Amino acid sequence: MDLVRSGNQSSPLAGGMTLRGVVPYLVTPIRADGRPDPGALRTITAQAVAAGVQGLVPLGSSGEFPYIGDKDRAVVLRAVVDEAGGATPILPGVGGFSVEQAVAQARAAVDAGADGVLCIILAFGRLSDDEILRYVEGVVSAVDVPVGLYHNPELCGVSFSDRVVKAALVDGGASFVKDASGHLDNLSRWVDLVGGKAEIFSSTAVSPTAAMLLGASGWMSGPATAFPAASVRVFELCQEGRWRDALIVERALEPALDLFRRLGPTRGAKALVTASGIPAGPPVPPLAPLDPQEMEWSASCVAEVQRRIDALPDWSSPGHD
Amino acid sequence: MDLVRSGNQSSPLAGGMTLRGVVPYLVTPIRADGRPDPGALRTITAQAVAAGVQGLVPLGSSGEFPYIGDKDRAVVLRAVVDEAGGATPILPGVGGFSVEQAVAQARAAVDAGADGVLCIILAFGRLSDDEILRYVEGVVSAVDVPVGLYHNPELCGVSFSDRVVKAALVDGGASFVKDASGHLDNLSRWVDLVGGKAEIFSSTAVSPTAAMLLGASGWMSGPATAFPAASVRVFELCQEGRWRDALIVERALEPALDLFRRLGPTRGAKALVTASGIPAGPPVPPLAPLDPQEMEWSASCVAEVQRRIDALPDWSSPGHD
Amino acid sequence: MDLVRSGNQSSPLAGGMTLRGVVPYLVTPIRADGRPDPGALRTITAQAVAAGVQGLVPLGSSGEFPYIGDKDRAVVLRAVVDEAGGATPILPGVGGFSVEQAVAQARAAVDAGADGVLCIILAFGRLSDDEILRYVEGVVSAVDVPVGLYHNPELCGVSFSDRVVKAALVDGGASFVKDASGHLDNLSRWVDLVGGKAEIFSSTAVSPTAAMLLGASGWMSGPATAFPAASVRVFELCQEGRWRDALIVERALEPALDLFRRLGPTRGAKALVTASGIPAGPPVPPLAPLDPQEMEWSASCVAEVQRRIDALPDWSSPGHD
Amino acid sequence: MDLVRSGNQSSPLAGGMTLRGVVPYLVTPIRADGRPDPGALRTITAQAVAAGVQGLVPLGSSGEFPYIGDKDRAVVLRAVVDEAGGATPILPGVGGFSVEQAVAQARAAVDAGADGVLCIILAFGRLSDDEILRYVEGVVSAVDVPVGLYHNPELCGVSFSDRVVKAALVDGGASFVKDASGHLDNLSRWVDLVGGKAEIFSSTAVSPTAAMLLGASGWMSGPATAFPAASVRVFELCQEGRWRDALIVERALEPALDLFRRLGPTRGAKALVTASGIPAGPPVPPLAPLDPQEMEWSASCVAEVQRRIDALPDWSSPGHD
Repeated sequence: MDLVRSGNQSSPLAGGMTLRGVVPYLVTPIRADGRPDPGALRTITAQAVAAGVQGLVPLGSSGEFPYIGDKDRAVVLRAVVDEAGGATPILPGVGGFSVEQAVAQARAAVDAGADGVLCIILAFGRLSDDEILRYVEGVVSAVDVPVGLYHNPELCGVSFSDRVVKAALVDGGASFVKDASGHLDNLSRWVDLVGGKAEIFSSTAVSPTAAMLLGASGWMSGPATAFPAASVRVFELCQEGRWRDALIVERALEPALDLFRRLGPTRGAKALVTASGIPAGPPVPPLAPLDPQEMEWSASCVAEVQRRIDALPDWSSPGHD
Repeated sequence: MDLVRSGNQSSPLAGGMTLRGVVPYLVTPIRADGRPDPGALRTITAQAVAAGVQGLVPLGSSGEFPYIGDKDRAVVLRAVVDEAGGATPILPGVGGFSVEQAVAQARAAVDAGADGVLCIILAFGRLSDDEILRYVEGVVSAVDVPVGLYHNPELCGVSFSDRVVKAALVDGGASFVKDASGHLDNLSRWVDLVGGKAEIFSSTAVSPTAAMLLGASGWMSGPATAFPAASVRVFELCQEGRWRDALIVERALEPALDLFRRLGPTRGAKALVTASGIPAGPPVPPLAPLDPQEMEWSASCVAEVQRRIDALPDWSSPGHD
Repeated sequence: MDLVRSGNQSSPLAGGMTLRGVVPYLVTPIRADGRPDPGALRTITAQAVAAGVQGLVPLGSSGEFPYIGDKDRAVVLRAVVDEAGGATPILPGVGGFSVEQAVAQARAAVDAGADGVLCIILAFGRLSDDEILRYVEGVVSAVDVPVGLYHNPELCGVSFSDRVVKAALVDGGASFVKDASGHLDNLSRWVDLVGGKAEIFSSTAVSPTAAMLLGASGWMSGPATAFPAASVRVFELCQEGRWRDALIVERALEPALDLFRRLGPTRGAKALVTASGIPAGPPVPPLAPLDPQEMEWSASCVAEVQRRIDALPDWSSPGHD
Repeated sequence: MDLVRSGNQSSPLAGGMTLRGVVPYLVTPIRADGRPDPGALRTITAQAVAAGVQGLVPLGSSGEFPYIGDKDRAVVLRAVVDEAGGATPILPGVGGFSVEQAVAQARAAVDAGADGVLCIILAFGRLSDDEILRYVEGVVSAVDVPVGLYHNPELCGVSFSDRVVKAALVDGGASFVKDASGHLDNLSRWVDLVGGKAEIFSSTAVSPTAAMLLGASGWMSGPATAFPAASVRVFELCQEGRWRDALIVERALEPALDLFRRLGPTRGAKALVTASGIPAGPPVPPLAPLDPQEMEWSASCVAEVQRRIDALPDWSSPGHD
C-alpha cells in the first residue's frame, strides 16, 4: 500500500547531507548603525545547531531578504557559515526580480560556503508559468548546489501552478519547495506530484504536524529560531508516527506561532527572538519598530511557551496516541 | 495535558443524539421535468444510513441549496426524513439573504421533521459582524433544534471573524460550524476558541484526517454521498488515533475529492453520485449539464476509488502507525 | 470621424419609448410591521416623475432586491406602476440563482405592468460564460419586454467577460447593461463592443459625467432617488456637450454620492431618502438599522447638497466650458 | 463656483519648471549583450522632446524599474539627461523595499541630473500607513528636488489610503502622485483632498481624457513613448476644455492603449516602441521575449493608430464640442 508516502526517504545534499526536518529561518539582527550584527547572528546560529536543527535559512522572509543589500548579505552569510562550521546545511535565500540578480546572489552564496539556496522570485506584475520556469532554470543551471523554491503568493506575488511544480522539481533540477501558501491541499497534491523526487516543506501558516502527516519533509520556520529544540521535537515525533504527541508539542508553541502569523514573518520573528533573550534590533525601515505593547505581548508569549514546554510529558517516553 | 482536545466529547442533539462524525451532503436528484426525484433521493439516503453515517445534510451546497424553491424543498425534506426514519440526524441547509427567509425555511424544516438545521447566510455586499450575529440570533431563537453555521466565504461572500465564532457558538446558542474556508489554521483556532462548547466540522477543501487531528468533530462532505462507508471508516480510524491509517483510507478517496474540488460542490457531487450508479440528473439551470468528458472523468474516478478501496488492508486489523 | 459615439442614438422600448438618461433606483420603504410601504413609495415615484427622470428601477440593489419576498415584490410593483401611470418606463430588478426563479419574477413583473426588466444574476460559486449566457437567454426568451443586465461583480459574484457582453447584447437580445464594476475602461470598451446596438449605463461608483463622456447612455443611480432634478440636469448637460458644466452639477451631488459609496447601495440610499424627508424605514434584517450618527451624517449631506444646488449658476444659461 | 478645479494651476519644479501635461514613461532598450542601449534611448528621448512632452520618466514601470541594476540605471539616466539637455524635466523612477535603497537611488538620480524623482514603494507583505509615510519621508528629506509617488497596488502591493495621500502630499512635502489603480473615483477624491497643493496624474488604465476632466494634472503614460505628439494633443485639447475632441484623439490611440493594458507595462511598451521603429530589444529575463504573434499584433496596432491619427481633423481648428 503506497497511497501515503513513507517518512524515511531523503534527498542527498552536497557532501552526502540529506534535507529533511526543521529548518529555522534566521532573523537578521540589526545594530544601532543599521548594519547586521554578526555577533547576535552567531549566537542564534549556535543555539539552533546545538538544538539539532536539520538546516538553516539565513536571508529568508524572516531574515528580511529583500531589505538587505549585497554588502550586508555577505556579512550575514559569513557569520552563519562560519559559526555553523559544517554542522548543518546552510541554505540562504537568494533572488530578486531579474534572473541576473538571482544568479549573482546564488553564486555569491555558494562562494561564501552555502550548501544550497532557497530561490525567491519577486514579481512586478503577474509572471506566466514559462517566466517562472525560466527564472528557476537560470538559477539551477548557475550553481552546483541544491536549489529550493520559495512559494509565498501573498508576499511575492508569484503563484505556482501544478505544472510549474512538476516541471521545476521533477524535470527541472530543483530539489525542494517551501510552500507558505497556507493551503494544505496544495502541499498534499504536490507531495503526490513530485513522487519522492523532491522535498516539500511546510511553513508556519498552518500546523506543521498536519503538514508532515500529509507528507511534508519538514518545517521551514521563523518561530523555530526562537524555539529550536521543541521544533525539532515536533519533527522527531512525526517521524515516529506519534502524530498526537507531535501536535501536543506543537500546541505548546502555539502562542508564538500565533504572534508570528499576526505580526508577519519579519517583525514577528524579530519580536520572538528579542523576547527570547537575543537582541535582534529593529526591523529595517520602513518596517515599523516593535512598539512597547508588541514587545510585551511577545515577552508574554515566550514565557507562556516556555511554561507549556516545561509542562510537557517526558519526550522520551513511548507514545500515548 | 490538555493542549490538544481529546476526541471523546459530544454535543447532544434533540432526542439525545450526538453530532460527531461523517455527515454527507445529499445531492438533489432532478427529474426530466425539472422537479426533485424523491425515489433517487431515498436510495441515496438509504445507502448512507446503511453505511453508518452520523448525520445527513439535504439542501446544502451539494444539494444546490439556493437553486431549489420552497415547494421542491418540501419534497426533498419529506423523502429524506421519511427514508432515514430517525436512524440518523437530518440537518437540512436553510437560509437566504433576509432573516425572514431563513426563519421561514428553518421552521418549515423543523415542521418537516429535521433534527437540526445548517444555517447558510447569503450576502449582497459585505455584512458586518453584528449583521451576521443578528441573522444567527434570528434563526437560533426561532427553532428548538440545534443550529449549525455554514462558513464558506467563497460561495456565500460571508466571512466569520473569531469574534463572530465566539459570540455565535459559545454565547449565542449555535451548536456547530462547518468550515469550508480551506484554512486549517482557522479551524484549529476555532477549536480552541469554542473550547468544547460546540462542534467544528471540516469540509472537503482540505484533508479531513488532518482536520480531525487538529480537533475537528467530523467531516461534512459532498463526496461522502458517493462513498459513505469509506468516509465513515476515515472518521473511525481518527477516533482510534490511527491517523496514518485514516489517511491511507482518505487517499483511496482522493480521485473523488479532487474531482469534487475541481467541478465544484454542486456539479462535482452530482457527477460522483451519477457515476456511482444513482442517476442524479442535471444540475439546475443555469448550471451547466455535465458534459460527456466530465462524466467519463467521473466514471474513471469512481472506478479508481473503488479499486483503491478494495486494495485497502483489512480495516479491522490493529493499526500499523 | 466616428471613433467616438455620438450622443443621439436611442433604443426603442415597448410603446416607442426610448431608454437613455437618468434612471433612479427606488428604495423599498419598510413600515413598522416589516412590510413595504406603498404610500412612501408613491411619493418617491411621483417626485422622480415630476423631475423628469427617463425611467425607474424598483427592486434593484438600492431596492434591497434579494431581501424582498414575492408577495412584497408585488406590492412594490403595483404601487410604482400605478403611480407612474405610464409617464416613464418602469424596469424592475428581477432574478435569483436559478433561471426558473428569474423567469418567474420577470413574468410576474411584466404581468404587473413593467416596461422592461433589469436582470440580476446571483451566483453560488463562479459561473462560466456559458452559464451566464444560459441565464440571460432564459429571461430574454421568456418575456416580450426589453431585458437589461446588471453587472456588479462585488455584490453578485458574477463578472461579465467581453464575450458575454457581445453575445448577450449584440446577438442575444438583451437591450442594455448597467455596469457597476467601477471600471470605466470596461464601460468604454463595451460601448465600442456593442456598437450602438444596446445601451451601456453607468453606476454611481464613478463619475457619471465621465462615463457619459465615454459613451454611457445614462446613469442608473441610487442617489438620484433623493435628488432627481439635479441628476437629470447632469444628463442634459452631457447631452449638450457641456461636460464641465455637467461635472459642476455632479460635484454639487458629491457629498451624497460619497455617503452612498460608503454606506452601500441599500443602507446608503435609505439614509439619503429618509434625510430628504420621506421616511424609508429601516433596511431589511439582518442589515443594520441606520444609527443616529449615520442619520446625522446623512442629514448634513442632504443639506450640503441642497446648498450647493442652490448656489449653482442658472442652468438654462449657455455653457461656459 | 469652485466645485471643479480649474485647469490652470501648476506646481513649480526646481528651476521654475512646472509639472503638468503628458509625461511618457521611457522603455529601457536592451542590447544583445543584456545591457541598456544608450543610443536607442537617446532616439526615444529626442522624439518625445521634439513632440513637446511636459516631462519624462525613465526607469518607471515601463522602464522595467525593478529589473535594472545600479550600474545600468546610471547608464540609462546619463543618456536621457544628456539628450534632453534641460528641455523637459527628467523624473526617474527610484525606490525599492528599504528606505536605504530608495534614498540611495534618489540621491544618485539627482547627482546624475534628475529634476525630480518618481518614488516607487515595493512591499514584501502589507505595509501600514505609517510605514508608507516613513518611506516617503525618508526620500523627501533626502533630496532637494520634487518627489512624486507611484500608486499601483497591483504591481507594487502597496495601496494608498486617503490618509496617506493627504499626509504625504499636503503636509509631507511630496509634489505629485501618479495613480495607476484604475479607479477614477480615487483620483477624483484625491484631487479634492490635495486641494491644488500637489498634482494628481492619470495612468493608462483608464481614459486620460476622463481623468483630466475630473481634475488630473496630466497623463504619465507608457504608450505616449510611441505616440508622443498625439498624446500631447490630448492634453492640450483638455486644457482648452475641448473634451470631446480630446476623446476623439485619445480614441485614435485606443488600439495601442488596449495592447499596453493586455501585455502589461513592460512588455507592452517595448512592443509598441519596437513596432514604431526603434528597436527596444527584449524584456529583461525572466520576462518573456515578445513572440512573433505579439509583434505582429503590435505592428498592426501601430499602423492602425497611425491611420487613425492621419484621419483626424485639423487639430488647430476650433472645437466642435
